[in-house]
Formats: sequence, structure tokens, C-alpha cells
Amino acid sequence: MDNTQGKWPDHVGILALEIVVPSTYVNQTDLELHDGVSKGKYTIGLGQERMAFCSDREDVVSLCLTAVSLLMHRTKTSYSNIGRLEVGTETPVDKSKSIKSMLMRLFDNCNNVEGVDSTNACYGGTAALFNSIAWLESSAWDGRLALVVAADVATYARGGARPTGGAGAVAMLLGPNAPLVLDRELRASHMADTYDFYKGDMGTNYPTVDGKVSIRCYFEALYNCYYLYRKRFLKKFADTDNTNTPNNTSPKSVLQHFDAIVFHSPYGKLVRKAFTWLTLHDVQLDAKCYEDESDLLKYVNSDISVNMLSELGVIKDTDKLFKKLTAPTQKLPKNIGNMYTASIFGGLISYLLSKPINEMAGKRIAMFSFGSGMCSSFYSITIRPGEKLETLIDLLQHVPVMLENRQSTSTVEFENTLTNRELAYNKAPFEPTSNVDNLFPDSWYLTHIDSTFKRYYAQKK
Amino acid sequence: MDNTQGKWPDHVGILALEIVVPSTYVNQTDLELHDGVSKGKYTIGLGQERMAFCSDREDVVSLCLTAVSLLMHRTKTSYSNIGRLEVGTETPVDKSKSIKSMLMRLFDNCNNVEGVDSTNACYGGTAALFNSIAWLESSAWDGRLALVVAADVATYARGGARPTGGAGAVAMLLGPNAPLVLDRELRASHMADTYDFYKGDMGTNYPTVDGKVSIRCYFEALYNCYYLYRKRFLKKFADTDNTNTPNNTSPKSVLQHFDAIVFHSPYGKLVRKAFTWLTLHDVQLDAKCYEDESDLLKYVNSDISVNMLSELGVIKDTDKLFKKLTAPTQKLPKNIGNMYTASIFGGLISYLLSKPINEMAGKRIAMFSFGSGMCSSFYSITIRPGEKLETLIDLLQHVPVMLENRQSTSTVEFENTLTNRELAYNKAPFEPTSNVDNLFPDSWYLTHIDSTFKRYYAQKK
Repeated sequence: MDNTQGKWPDHVGILALEIVVPSTYVNQTDLELHDGVSKGKYTIGLGQERMAFCSDREDVVSLCLTAVSLLMHRTKTSYSNIGRLEVGTETPVDKSKSIKSMLMRLFDNCNNVEGVDSTNACYGGTAALFNSIAWLESSAWDGRLALVVAADVATYARGGARPTGGAGAVAMLLGPNAPLVLDRELRASHMADTYDFYKGDMGTNYPTVDGKVSIRCYFEALYNCYYLYRKRFLKKFADTDNTNTPNNTSPKSVLQHFDAIVFHSPYGKLVRKAFTWLTLHDVQLDAKCYEDESDLLKYVNSDISVNMLSELGVIKDTDKLFKKLTAPTQKLPKNIGNMYTASIFGGLISYLLSKPINEMAGKRIAMFSFGSGMCSSFYSITIRPGEKLETLIDLLQHVPVMLENRQSTSTVEFENTLTNRELAYNKAPFEPTSNVDNLFPDSWYLTHIDSTFKRYYAQKK
Repeated sequence: MDNTQGKWPDHVGILALEIVVPSTYVNQTDLELHDGVSKGKYTIGLGQERMAFCSDREDVVSLCLTAVSLLMHRTKTSYSNIGRLEVGTETPVDKSKSIKSMLMRLFDNCNNVEGVDSTNACYGGTAALFNSIAWLESSAWDGRLALVVAADVATYARGGARPTGGAGAVAMLLGPNAPLVLDRELRASHMADTYDFYKGDMGTNYPTVDGKVSIRCYFEALYNCYYLYRKRFLKKFADTDNTNTPNNTSPKSVLQHFDAIVFHSPYGKLVRKAFTWLTLHDVQLDAKCYEDESDLLKYVNSDISVNMLSELGVIKDTDKLFKKLTAPTQKLPKNIGNMYTASIFGGLISYLLSKPINEMAGKRIAMFSFGSGMCSSFYSITIRPGEKLETLIDLLQHVPVMLENRQSTSTVEFENTLTNRELAYNKAPFEPTSNVDNLFPDSWYLTHIDSTFKRYYAQKK
């Protein structure tokens, strides 16, 4: 325990990550055909490739159980060394009992584990992360580690939003002396009362979505968060000349200090636009830092609206920067779909798998988390080299293999599965019928729901 | 900002509290008659006097809006001085959008406010409190204050549990140099996967309850939490002889160090039993500290089961201690009913109103928070004398007046209101019909829910 002196422990952050996705996916090209839309509407128009979805054997609880048990097993962590566990989700299966409480079945007699569920749309995982990081820096910390799980099953009613679904869980082990350190004092949030996407109807598993308003909220949140983050950055580094790096005489904007920018990713195209929009705003905030970028300098005095971004020229002008900073964060989001609360951490994992470990040391990652309704934050992570970083990245090597080992499913089966989930929503008693053989090894799965809505799970051996 | 050196600020805790209850209640004696049960079944058997309930104008969101706006107004706090706002509830009105986001409408252009909703049954308010206290001690703290709101509308289907309902919200302003300081490093939790009380059926506003299992869980949690808290206390004060106070040669058990013990209160009788059970366990843990208490020493070697407690003798033997330590925390819980997440803070407010301010200085309050499912914690608060304590208590002086100014409602009207709420559950569009005149001044209320489940509120002027 490092905090007996009333001080924060050093380098608090992420020690290890685990991601769990269903073993089935549907190809977005197949869906385009099936839905009778123009070729490329989902793959180019939305920027998505494959979409994960759950059979009736899997739900948000089973995904969480699998993610936590795999992370604990692979990192050889004892459950007695966990002092806090928190779940971020917007796919609740109970209005009162937390998913965190359901995960306690994994903990045997280690019951002294703080934390509950955190909810606000796709932002809940970030809230859980922030809460747990604060716990590690607080007087409540008892020297043990924290676990955060972000998990969701994202499905939409038939129509335009359906191809933007997805499913998955990311579990994170947190503690001091971590290889991925959350930058202290650099964080900004933007919260407001909006109805862009919500689930006010308790009688359905689908959200109510106003896509246009949601996009407007996303961009408003991004701008306000970055603007405030930038102010904090400049204040924190007021004594140093932050616009110059030590070995480089060219000035740098705050945005240019990042080696990667991870955005919450409902679908790839929105992230592409968001990157462009953020960059153009940064050009306007810090024109002098972009003196060598003639493609961008022309936007210094332009009034940029989100709609303008669809014009190919604007997007194209930021292409080089996008390929460097954000494209490497897109592999998982494009191949899984929107995991809601877990989505941003899927982006982080994508980046960590995108280049050799020796290129990672000292890199700084920007994270933009957005949840409709709305809650959003902009924060950053610094990568510390060393053995722990190697371990963290080693533990992720199975992820690309797992993604390839999934089964491609026909669009008809995909539609049937979603219809069945729709019919099974809030049904009790309920007996799932899907074959357990199709699940990945060690997966937890739903065995049944009894007539009083109690849920029962088992682990595939 | 005190934490620029990486250190915790001093005396982090509660600066001010506000409680909001509906303006209507039903008498438990009237309910006994109405339900045709034996006289005293609810008043003596459950230990309850009055039960608050909401008309169709009020819900968990309106209670939160009222509590926050009154607390901010009465403490003359600027919304720009709030850096974090978190809601604890188990009465969600949306599966995705947080109540926290709905409260942002109060914040004008002050959008940089962290925090979301925390959920696990009656424990959610405690989770929100712990999270916010940790934020104040962490590197994320920016010098502003935190707000926590715990709020619920507790209603039960017709039957034995119905008289254990209630409704209300408690808002708390948190910061450093507070008059109510959360004791550092003294906290213990007990979490487990149980189905004693839950809301797995999304089609109803009522919980599924297994009363017997719930009581067993409550006692198991209490024992485990106290046992662990006690161990921490003894470890923390290992260097001093903690069993002796400086000016008193008689030994003290850890429990005897408290001047008040607040229990989560589903109903008074359970708290009464819990107090007895805790005391008898403490006698067994620390017999030497009870040498002068012949009434209790006889239980040193007895095997105490929860069922045994109903025998009048056992309860009676702890009566003197109960009257001193816990009876003063019962006024609000008995007169409001179970406010779920807010219940424990109603107990705290009761204690703060129970004696003259000059008797409060230095007092230590134990807090036992329990949420079914289950999550529970035992923690403690030390009262710091001074101007800020006077302000905090001054701000609560309206509470007993408010409780008396409520309208007593007939049991028929109470039943009709609950039936109407049952029929209105998840109904959209929905227009409330209750008269706004009956609400307390400055109350927020539901104006309507539109056909897409968007909720609209206004404030009574």
C-alpha cells in the first residue's frame, strides 16, 4: 500500500485488458444485399465490415462473466487481490440488482469488493473507469487492484440503424505502476440533458434513436471536451513552452502531442468525420502549429459545419493525419460493431495491437468517450515501457485470432436471431435453444430464466 | 485546490444535506384497519408510523430535481462550483439515459460535471457517495464541490410488503473541510450474488421480494461488514491502546466508540433487531468490554440466531443501548417509510436533528448501508464542530416542519394512487391528472410523457 501518507500511488492506470465477443458475426456486405440497399452503404457509407451479435445463450451478464474470468485466469490474478469491481452498461437485465452483484459468484469467499453498476448510455464504462482510478488514489484504497467491465449487447429495430449494432465486453485490471497510465489532471467533460438516443420504453430491448440529433450531440460534446482539455493542458504546462517539444523546433498544437486518438465508435464513418472536425477546429485554435500543412491552413477562417464534412475534399485533406492517428484504432470497432460502453476500449485495444511494442513506449493516446443523453469526456493515456507493457500486449495476442475464428452467419440466421431475442425480451420462464457448442471455450452462457425472472448461468468447459 | 502536491485534501465529507418527500402520506394505523390486519401489525410489528407516497405528478426524476435545486438555493452554491454530480437509485425511468443527465438542465452552461447513475438496490446512494468522496481525494479533483442525490419511489404490489413502501430524495453537497467527515481507511464491504429482492421483470414497477431471504442477507451482510470494519479499526489504532479512551479507564469495544449507529431502514422493526444482533455479536467479540453489563454478558457463549431475536427478552436487554445509539436515527425512516437509496441518509438527518448542536461535536456515527442483490458497507462519520456544522444543522430545521405539513390521505386514496401508478407504468403518451396545488412550493413535477417516452418537467412557483 503506497497511500498511507495521504498521497496518490504512482502511475495509476490499466495493468491488463481482456475483450470478449460473441462467436458469431454477420458480414456487412451480405447485409447490404439482404436489405436491398446500394452496394457499399454499410461498408463504405457507415465504414463497417462485420457485426457481432449474440445467440439466445449470451447476454450482457454472460459476456461480463466470461470477460472477468478470462482476465483473472490469463493474468493469474487471485480474486482475493481485487478490492473493487464495477460494471458500465446500458443493457440492464434488472432494474435493481446490479450485474456487479451477479459477478460476485466468481469471487468465492472474497466478498469485500466495492463498486456497483454505472449507467449512462455508451459512457458507463468510462464512468466506471474514472471511479475506479479515483478509488486507487483515495483513502479508501486498501492496496488491492480494481476491475472494470464495460459490456453491452447493441441491437436495433429493423431499419437504418440495425447495421450499427454489435456486442462485446472489455474487462480491465487497474492498479498503480501500470503500463497504461491515465494522465493526471488532464480530463474534461461535457454533460447535458438531451434525448438523442434513450431507452425510456421498458417494453422493448431496442433504443429510441434520433440519429441526426445524436450526431449533433456527439460533435458538440467533442468540441467542448477538447476545448476544455486543451485549456487544462496549456495551464498544466504553463511553465514549460508546451508548444515546442525538446528535440523539435517546430511548434506543436495540443492535439499534435498525441500519437493516437481513440473516439467512441458507433460506426467508422462517424469517427472519420469526427477526426476531420476535431483537426479543423485545432487548426483554427492553433494556426501557427499547422504552418507546414497547406491542405489544412485554408480552413483557418472557414465556418465548419458538420454537414460540410461530407464533402470529399475536407475529409481528404485530413487523410494523412487520420491514417497516422485514428485508423490504427479502428480494427476492432469495424469488425465487431458498436459495443456501446466497451466500444472505446475496443479502439484502445486496436491501437495496442497496431504496431510493434518497441514503437509504443512513451506514446500518448487521446480518448474521447461519448454517451447519448448525454455524458462525454476527453482524457489521455501515456504508455510506459517495460515488462508490464510487454505482458499487457502479450495478453492481447489472441484477439485477432479470436476475431478470425468467429463464424460468419447468414443474414437470414442473423435476422431470425434478432427476432427471437425480440420475442424473448422480458420473457419468464425462458429456456434458450441455441447450441452451446458454437460458443468459444470457457464462455459463460445463460442456462435459463425461471418463472420469477431469476437468471442462471454456467461455464462451457 | 489542495491536491496539487498529490495529497488528499483535509476532512473530506458532507457540507450540507437536503431531503425532499412527497406532500402526501398515509397513516399506518389507518392502513391496518383498511387491510383488516391485527391492530399494531404495521405500527408495532413493523415499527412504522407514516408512509410517504407520490401522486402521478412526482417520480424519481422530479424528486431529484427538487432536492438538487433546493440544496443549491439554500446553501447559496453556484452551479459553476459543482464538478461532479452522481445519482444513486433503483427506480430507473430509462435503461440508458441517466437521471444525472436529466438534472443537467439545472446547470445552464456549466456542463463540465462528471458522474452518472449508480445502481444496486438500496445501496446505490452509498456507492455514489463513496465515488464522489474518492473523486475529491483524487487527481481528477479540480477544486470544485460534488453533489450526490439518492432517490427512490418504493411501492409494492398489494400484500404484506405494501406497508414497507415510501418515497423521497436526499441530496448532499460534498467537499473538503466538511463538518461531517467520512473516516479514512475505516470501511468494509460485503457483496454477494443473491436474489432476495430484485426487479428482473421490466413490465412492472414492483419488485420481486423474498422477505425471509432478504432478512437473512441483511444480517449476514451486517455481521461480515462490522467484523471487517472492526479489524480495520483495531489495525489502524494498533499503536494506541484503542480499548481504552484517554479519560476513561473502562475498556471500550469498537462498537462502543460510536455515539450513534444508523442502519439502512426498510422498516423500524428490522433495525431494532439488527441493533440487538450487532450488539450481541460485539459482546461475543469483546466480552471484557461489557463486564458491567450483566444483561448482555449472559449471551457471551450463546448461539444467537436471527429468529431468537424475536424473543422479547433479548430485545429488551439491549433497550438502553438502542435508545441511546439508534432510536435517535429513526424519526424520518418511521415517518417516511423506505426511501431505498435515500433511507440511510434519512437516518443520518434524524440523528442530526435529535439533540442540541453543542452535544454533537466530536461524535462518531456508524453507517450500515445495505442493498439487496447484494451490496453492503459499514463506514463511519466524525462530526467536526464549528460554523459549518451550525450551517449544516440550520439548513435542516425545516425538515420536521415539512413532515408535519404533509397531508394525511385516506387509505382509499392511497390505494387508488398506487393502482393508477401501476396502470401508468411504461405508458406513453401519459398526462398526469393530479392537482399541482397539493405539491410543496418549489417542487419540480412531471408535466407529461410524450408518445416517444420523452419526459417533461416543470417547477412549481
